[in-house]
Amino acid sequence: MNAPRTAPLAAFHIYDTTLRDGSQQEGLTLSVADKLAVARLLDELGVTYLEGGWPGAVPRDTEFFARAATELELRTARLAAFGATRKAGVAVAEDTQVAALVDSQAPTITLVAKSDIRHVRGALRTTGEENLAMVRDTVEHLTGLGREVFVDAEHFFDGFEHDGDYTTSVVAAAFDAGAEVVVLCDTNGGMLPHRVTEIIEDLRGRLAAVGHGNARLGVHTHNDSGCAVANALTAVRAGITHVQGCVNGYGERTGNADLLTLVADLQLKMGMELVDPDVLSEMTRIAQAIGEIVNMPVGHRAPYVGASAFAHKAGLHASAIRVDPDLYQHIDPRDVGNDMRMIISDMAGRASIELKGRELGFDLAGNQDLLSRLAATIKQREAAGYSYEAADASFELLLLDQLGEVPQYVDVESWRATSQLGRDGTLESEATVKLVATGAGEPERKVAIAEGNGPVNALDLALRAALRDRFPMIDEFELQDFKVRILDAQHGTDATTRVLVRTSGRGLEFQTVGVGPNVIEASWEAVFDAYTYGLYKSGI
Amino acid sequence: MNAPRTAPLAAFHIYDTTLRDGSQQEGLTLSVADKLAVARLLDELGVTYLEGGWPGAVPRDTEFFARAATELELRTARLAAFGATRKAGVAVAEDTQVAALVDSQAPTITLVAKSDIRHVRGALRTTGEENLAMVRDTVEHLTGLGREVFVDAEHFFDGFEHDGDYTTSVVAAAFDAGAEVVVLCDTNGGMLPHRVTEIIEDLRGRLAAVGHGNARLGVHTHNDSGCAVANALTAVRAGITHVQGCVNGYGERTGNADLLTLVADLQLKMGMELVDPDVLSEMTRIAQAIGEIVNMPVGHRAPYVGASAFAHKAGLHASAIRVDPDLYQHIDPRDVGNDMRMIISDMAGRASIELKGRELGFDLAGNQDLLSRLAATIKQREAAGYSYEAADASFELLLLDQLGEVPQYVDVESWRATSQLGRDGTLESEATVKLVATGAGEPERKVAIAEGNGPVNALDLALRAALRDRFPMIDEFELQDFKVRILDAQHGTDATTRVLVRTSGRGLEFQTVGVGPNVIEASWEAVFDAYTYGLYKSGI
Repeated sequence: MNAPRTAPLAAFHIYDTTLRDGSQQEGLTLSVADKLAVARLLDELGVTYLEGGWPGAVPRDTEFFARAATELELRTARLAAFGATRKAGVAVAEDTQVAALVDSQAPTITLVAKSDIRHVRGALRTTGEENLAMVRDTVEHLTGLGREVFVDAEHFFDGFEHDGDYTTSVVAAAFDAGAEVVVLCDTNGGMLPHRVTEIIEDLRGRLAAVGHGNARLGVHTHNDSGCAVANALTAVRAGITHVQGCVNGYGERTGNADLLTLVADLQLKMGMELVDPDVLSEMTRIAQAIGEIVNMPVGHRAPYVGASAFAHKAGLHASAIRVDPDLYQHIDPRDVGNDMRMIISDMAGRASIELKGRELGFDLAGNQDLLSRLAATIKQREAAGYSYEAADASFELLLLDQLGEVPQYVDVESWRATSQLGRDGTLESEATVKLVATGAGEPERKVAIAEGNGPVNALDLALRAALRDRFPMIDEFELQDFKVRILDAQHGTDATTRVLVRTSGRGLEFQTVGVGPNVIEASWEAVFDAYTYGLYKSGI
Repeated sequence: MNAPRTAPLAAFHIYDTTLRDGSQQEGLTLSVADKLAVARLLDELGVTYLEGGWPGAVPRDTEFFARAATELELRTARLAAFGATRKAGVAVAEDTQVAALVDSQAPTITLVAKSDIRHVRGALRTTGEENLAMVRDTVEHLTGLGREVFVDAEHFFDGFEHDGDYTTSVVAAAFDAGAEVVVLCDTNGGMLPHRVTEIIEDLRGRLAAVGHGNARLGVHTHNDSGCAVANALTAVRAGITHVQGCVNGYGERTGNADLLTLVADLQLKMGMELVDPDVLSEMTRIAQAIGEIVNMPVGHRAPYVGASAFAHKAGLHASAIRVDPDLYQHIDPRDVGNDMRMIISDMAGRASIELKGRELGFDLAGNQDLLSRLAATIKQREAAGYSYEAADASFELLLLDQLGEVPQYVDVESWRATSQLGRDGTLESEATVKLVATGAGEPERKVAIAEGNGPVNALDLALRAALRDRFPMIDEFELQDFKVRILDAQHGTDATTRVLVRTSGRGLEFQTVGVGPNVIEASWEAVFDAYTYGLYKSGI
């Protein structure tokens, strides 16, 4: 962990709270190892501050700070511990929660303080005066110990609308006591940009009157009105120099402001130099990597870093994109490490397929017949439930098939997969596969059986067992993920199933698709396509 | 379909383009029947205009307008057909695309016109002058036939930044020719709110100089900078009285402005009376219904209508929410037909579980022991992969178990499921189930076999077959959907699997969860929980 900083504060703070407020998201749970891994990626991204959690209140967070002290080498980020002001009626030196913040060794401590008088009375069950004393005492105690202190003014905007005098007095008390930044929090997330501007301007006037006209303000927004990012941008235009948010917009309810969108907007559209351009161009990779670690994949439609962010589907656009891609993109996707992508769907015309082919390294421009046949095949297969939008490898196999270059390594005779629960409670899955290996030598019949952790795994293992002798590189490929989608949701377990399989190996990562009346058959098709594609790419 | 309107224009237009621009979203494909069903729901929501598609260009859309003319009874919405200005160098009366717009019988026609000179030259491959003539000719032709004409100024904002004079001339030409509204489109989606305001003010001045100072302007935004909603709100504050968007934010790339968020923001936070409050309180239901039809479920984190929009997870909040829920919500969720919801997760303290119990009709306040045991059980099971956040029925069964009231209808002895591909290419799945039925009478052993459309379906059918005699109401329940999630994505097909099953019947709809080393076992558990819960709720 970095030592307390002696250099002057950065001119602008990118303050990440993924590890604290972000982990309030429904379905998101982080282990200490996850937190350390995310912290390293956030540091790589160049955030100024990294809020690690609430030591003392959450056991996992206490452990995170303990391990961070020895295991975390930060390059640019400074570690912040989140906690609360002292309890009402308790001396700050005797408050165990405050002591835990000190023990965390974090050089920066971000204190949450109630700034809405209704919360002071209703939730803290204390008086406005005692709350001000709690803020002052805790900030003074921590700055006295040499820590940098930020104060999150909780429910600031709602509080200001209800009673601007009291809310201002909390902000002023924090500055009086030595806080470096007071962060204006839209805790319930209901603000709109124009009110953010008006309230900040009002607050500035009130602070100037008590000698804090130049004090440093921050902003913390949520997306409940669909304006988290805009509210933060607006605050920056109103002079705020510290923005809080979470990677991929993780967070409770509708999420916190997406820190990646914010940084990209500020840097690429508002001319601020926040991170090195080379770092910005790692943004998509870092977003995806964090999504994998927290097991909450980046939304396809996420601005800048989503898989669809620079994807084009319409036939009309596809024709014009051939002329000049910049006319159809708000930025160059390479600036954030993303790519323009043509979506192959039943709306795809020949122009889209031609562009997609070019992406994959095939020049189809001169082959209008082939393009027409491919477009027709895709329409027909998508109507049956296939989706090539996400399954580039299956699309390429389709293209190779039309070119008469489809690799044919195997003739499958039959397979069987069985799962059973025995009377003694044991679960067993096994599969048999019978096939004739045809590629790379004389045809040879192979019969294999495997037990597995479920029927698809058993089939996967039996297929590998049958192919291993002939194609040893098959063991270099690993199935990373498989996603199951029921296509006709009105028929429960008796419906068409689509399976997408993601495979990696030999420096490749690719997706294949299978469709069938059930999950086993659809999985078989996607897995079989994956091995076919893997062998093809291995030059077999 | 409604007749051409003779009443004055509505003071403010909510213009929905879900059926046209929304269907550009990756993965979204609508049949004509889907479009008609969505149109009815949009009308119920009270939109002013409903853009049905591009007749003449997309065969499905031509059919939609033909069927709408006889099958669609609209209450408040007016149908608009989307199309392009005439082709360069072709007389408007001879342009087949324009003729198709007329043939659609739509009372309103929205013409897309290029307003960025770079697109005029690069994509249309014509001159600025000819483009202006194309706009004038087409608008005059259609207004001459009695149609109401709107013009979507494509790439307006980018065009204005590049060459404000030319872009303004396109807008002015549309008004000169009789367009009712010119819609300023942020086609590439890269704008930020402050530039939207500045450009609209600049445009207003330029239009005033050519006699169109009071002309009606609209706005059409995309979310590529994360500001789609804020850009539209900003435009409304700058005097715009026509907003375009899509339900659930559907649309190409990062999506269009979410029309539901927009309407809720405008009505609940900016004081505009756009729809009847009773209609607004149907918003969540309508959003979910459209999500089902288009097979693109509402995002959990969607503002206002998402399942997580008013969900609380943190133990800290849960305690205070018991005191006063309004302090933790930006609006009353009932205003949009949503609910506050306590999330039961491994972060749940006893306060959350107590509140969740109250939601389900159990008063657990006096039973601290039970609350502690439940909290511990939930932490342990979530660590093993279960998720009760979405599976209320499984949570209730867990609670009943702790209360010693768990219904026990069946002892399962064993089951087996087999899928196979035969040499003749036929696929077969069958399952056997052996159990002892214990509820509602003397214990009785049942053995059943069923063939099914896949192993889970076969197991489901075999289980039903074994239970039908004893519990005939089991056939009133239907499995609606099942979702599969691989929990440890690093291990491909050999990983823990979580299955969520949604079941409906006897007026209920509920979700159950199963976890296991494979999809079959996890599905079995979730399906078995579903029947147990269904029987329990049937009063067995």
